[in-house]
Amino acid sequence: MLDKEEIVIHDIINSAKSLMQQYGLKKTTMEDIAKAAGKGKSTLYYYFKDKDEIFDRVINFEIDEFFNTVKTAVTKQSDAVSMLKAYMVIRIKTLKDKTNLYRFAIENDFEGKVNKEFGKLRNRYDNEEKKLISFILAKGVESNLFKSEISHEIESISELLVSCIRGIEMDFIAHQKNKHLVEKADLFTEFLLKGIGR
Amino acid sequence: MLDKEEIVIHDIINSAKSLMQQYGLKKTTMEDIAKAAGKGKSTLYYYFKDKDEIFDRVINFEIDEFFNTVKTAVTKQSDAVSMLKAYMVIRIKTLKDKTNLYRFAIENDFEGKVNKEFGKLRNRYDNEEKKLISFILAKGVESNLFKSEISHEIESISELLVSCIRGIEMDFIAHQKNKHLVEKADLFTEFLLKGIGR
Repeated sequence: MLDKEEIVIHDIINSAKSLMQQYGLKKTTMEDIAKAAGKGKSTLYYYFKDKDEIFDRVINFEIDEFFNTVKTAVTKQSDAVSMLKAYMVIRIKTLKDKTNLYRFAIENDFEGKVNKEFGKLRNRYDNEEKKLISFILAKGVESNLFKSEISHEIESISELLVSCIRGIEMDFIAHQKNKHLVEKADLFTEFLLKGIGR
Repeated sequence: MLDKEEIVIHDIINSAKSLMQQYGLKKTTMEDIAKAAGKGKSTLYYYFKDKDEIFDRVINFEIDEFFNTVKTAVTKQSDAVSMLKAYMVIRIKTLKDKTNLYRFAIENDFEGKVNKEFGKLRNRYDNEEKKLISFILAKGVESNLFKSEISHEIESISELLVSCIRGIEMDFIAHQKNKHLVEKADLFTEFLLKGIGR
């Protein structure tokens, strides 16, 4: 059960979220948020310093939600290879959905706060991703699916894989390339597993 | 030997290039370019419609130069694996240098012409890169270094590798990650060759 204060905060965040998606950060005022949440402006200022603090919370909330979706999909899989594939596909698809949802906001606030915040929060999220990939790799070694030799390089391989997947994602989201995401994920995991060398 | 007209055009492009690197596109006028090139403004307008056309040429010139540097480094290597490593390292290092050179311009014209142009020209360059990687992969198959089975998937693998390398590059350039680029390139080619699966 949420207590009373938590419900109020939740309502404010939620209202701010939809305003942000619809109109972008610049065009949304504290007054708009208060109205949408059915609260007085003073209530908003009681819980939050300013608009930026509310949007920080919105973004943090969205990132957590995004990451939980990915994590849930990954941990449902039975082996490390399917986990890796699920990770790629769900991660890219979920981000694409979020990007679409925030398209208006992103276009309008391009040089503004939104991007700065995403940049700042990116590090936190990068680490979460590296941890998830490391978990998958360790799982693969443990279950004899991956070579045991990689176990001392899990950190660097994870970092590399995160970068690779981000590159694939970038082409997918920004350039509408990689139309067949699932096939790409299959191909990627295939050469990651077997290699292309003789 | 360059003929007279080509020398004039070359001088204009070159002057525009250094002004662009120093001051960015917005703050550079046709008058500045004319002065720096030691030509009359009418001469500039004889060869170019406007400032944007000159900068298009500058960017095209830079991309060609960049790509030639990468291509030369790659074709110097004796086998497909070293080619792939050389490609990654030289590509990322050269782009980093260019980015530093244009840092001022990029910061100042962030939402402006420069980025739009780079976006437009990116497709041309993407294709060049895919061709180069395909060439390396075909070379590897031909010399028995890579599995012959990949020969019917060279197109898709190249596309995937271009995306992966771009992801590594992005983390390297934008986030100052991947400090040890050469080691990253080694690790990448190693798992690309041998795979991590049992």
